[in-house]
Amino acid sequence: MTLLFISNSDDPDRWREGLGRALPDLEVRVWPEIGRAEDIRYALVWKARPGILAGLPNLELIQSLGMGVDHIFVDPELPATVPVARLIDQDLVRQMSEYVLAMALRHHRRLDEYDRIQQTGDWRRLAMPDTGATRIGILGLGEIGAPIARLFAELGFAVAGWSRTQKSIPGVESFRGAAGLSNFLARTDILVCLLPLTKVTKNILDKTAFARLPKGAYIINLARGQHVVEEDLLAAIEAGHLSGAALDVFRTEPLPKDHPFWAHPKIRITPHIAGITNPATAVAQVAENIRRVRAGHQPLNLVDRTQGY
Amino acid sequence: MTLLFISNSDDPDRWREGLGRALPDLEVRVWPEIGRAEDIRYALVWKARPGILAGLPNLELIQSLGMGVDHIFVDPELPATVPVARLIDQDLVRQMSEYVLAMALRHHRRLDEYDRIQQTGDWRRLAMPDTGATRIGILGLGEIGAPIARLFAELGFAVAGWSRTQKSIPGVESFRGAAGLSNFLARTDILVCLLPLTKVTKNILDKTAFARLPKGAYIINLARGQHVVEEDLLAAIEAGHLSGAALDVFRTEPLPKDHPFWAHPKIRITPHIAGITNPATAVAQVAENIRRVRAGHQPLNLVDRTQGY
Repeated sequence: MTLLFISNSDDPDRWREGLGRALPDLEVRVWPEIGRAEDIRYALVWKARPGILAGLPNLELIQSLGMGVDHIFVDPELPATVPVARLIDQDLVRQMSEYVLAMALRHHRRLDEYDRIQQTGDWRRLAMPDTGATRIGILGLGEIGAPIARLFAELGFAVAGWSRTQKSIPGVESFRGAAGLSNFLARTDILVCLLPLTKVTKNILDKTAFARLPKGAYIINLARGQHVVEEDLLAAIEAGHLSGAALDVFRTEPLPKDHPFWAHPKIRITPHIAGITNPATAVAQVAENIRRVRAGHQPLNLVDRTQGY
Repeated sequence: MTLLFISNSDDPDRWREGLGRALPDLEVRVWPEIGRAEDIRYALVWKARPGILAGLPNLELIQSLGMGVDHIFVDPELPATVPVARLIDQDLVRQMSEYVLAMALRHHRRLDEYDRIQQTGDWRRLAMPDTGATRIGILGLGEIGAPIARLFAELGFAVAGWSRTQKSIPGVESFRGAAGLSNFLARTDILVCLLPLTKVTKNILDKTAFARLPKGAYIINLARGQHVVEEDLLAAIEAGHLSGAALDVFRTEPLPKDHPFWAHPKIRITPHIAGITNPATAVAQVAENIRRVRAGHQPLNLVDRTQGY
């Protein structure tokens, strides 16, 4: 019973230790030290190089190290029949909630403007925003989006969400499909992107989408860089149509040194830190999925390959 | 039936209009246009000049325009037997919750540090804070403090509160009294001051209190400037014992031009905007109190003069 760990950004020792405690008979190997490829039954992966998984003939589970699985489906040689599972780590959901609340409230309560006023030494009040009239729009009402939508509703904001299928969340207006997207954007002051990256959602935030948002709208993206057409975002901010953006993800990461986002006064950059899988809380879910696959059951959070998430 | 409105920072026209709709027979006069002092039955006040209320012989209600009533009790000639009422505006509670969440999460998720890193153009990750091990401490578990404590508990923080009397809030550890204060401070990483200003709480945040906080603790004050000994706060930050502060209130407001807080890189200043009474939501409570006093009943949110809030 052997698992292959493949990631350049997660700590293999913490995972080996946690999985060893949960499943004492599991052998953990860390890529590139594969050993006999035939031994590997489970792959725990983050951005594995394309082709690696195809070289494991007895693979029974491909477990993502994160919520997203787009990094798995970019592999053209991905084994077609091995189940792929997402990791829905509640600690990561909580981290992302904190990030969205922090960025949205900082914008809503004009704290960046107050920081600039502080620099001038002026005691000057800005108009108090009206929370009940401020419309939060969550793109993606899944495992992360739904609890965040509920939090904003509880705080008194006017909240809506857009997703592939209709959702029913108390206090949250639900939009779906292409027609729904246009109406959803037209009523959104603070747009939060939490979508999975799929063929349908790639480049969803482009100049057409930005033009549908009301003047002054603000963008928060902590999903994937490929959701946003970066030139279009920059143009919409430069034109004064959007008031700014808080971005945790980018089309190229690390964000290139010469990228215009770095020095833009209306763009806040964080280096993909909104949510980071924590082995301490996530190991139980991976161990459970290995147990399930061993027993011939479906893993938790199995990905629907036709939808890509 | 005449009400006297006394405030330099609230809009008398919005109040006159709202009260006029709720109580059509109420005459509203705006200080200093008092007219016949004997007519005045109700005073709606924010920082009235000492002695004004003593000149109103038929006063039946002193209604604060805000949550705090310290501005009323500074008047040495305050009529001794007229009931004083606080205004517990749910919209103001919501505003203060937003402010505390925004400031606490900005500090917790190290967003100011990320802003500085952005200026250097570096893609550099800081250690992810552990929310469950981050101890929020709320000074004052009343009408504002209790719901804010609940919010932080729901977000997964370790939350405690300190108040005059023991409180029972699920997920929130309750401390009380002088001995409790010391233990409360010793376990607090992010201290939020929401106390009423009374003889007991004035200067409560002094060098003794700061020394009890663990190294790296952060201060958020949106109660009153007089809770904080400002030189002691500055010294504790300069010494590296405290990591910084977000301050909405000051001993002197507007904060004097030459005050050292203005240019301090670890102090965030906002000009007393955390919560602003909104006539649109607050007028109903003032109208209800006038109806109650007319009917011979106690007003809502009656102040206990022995406690000062």
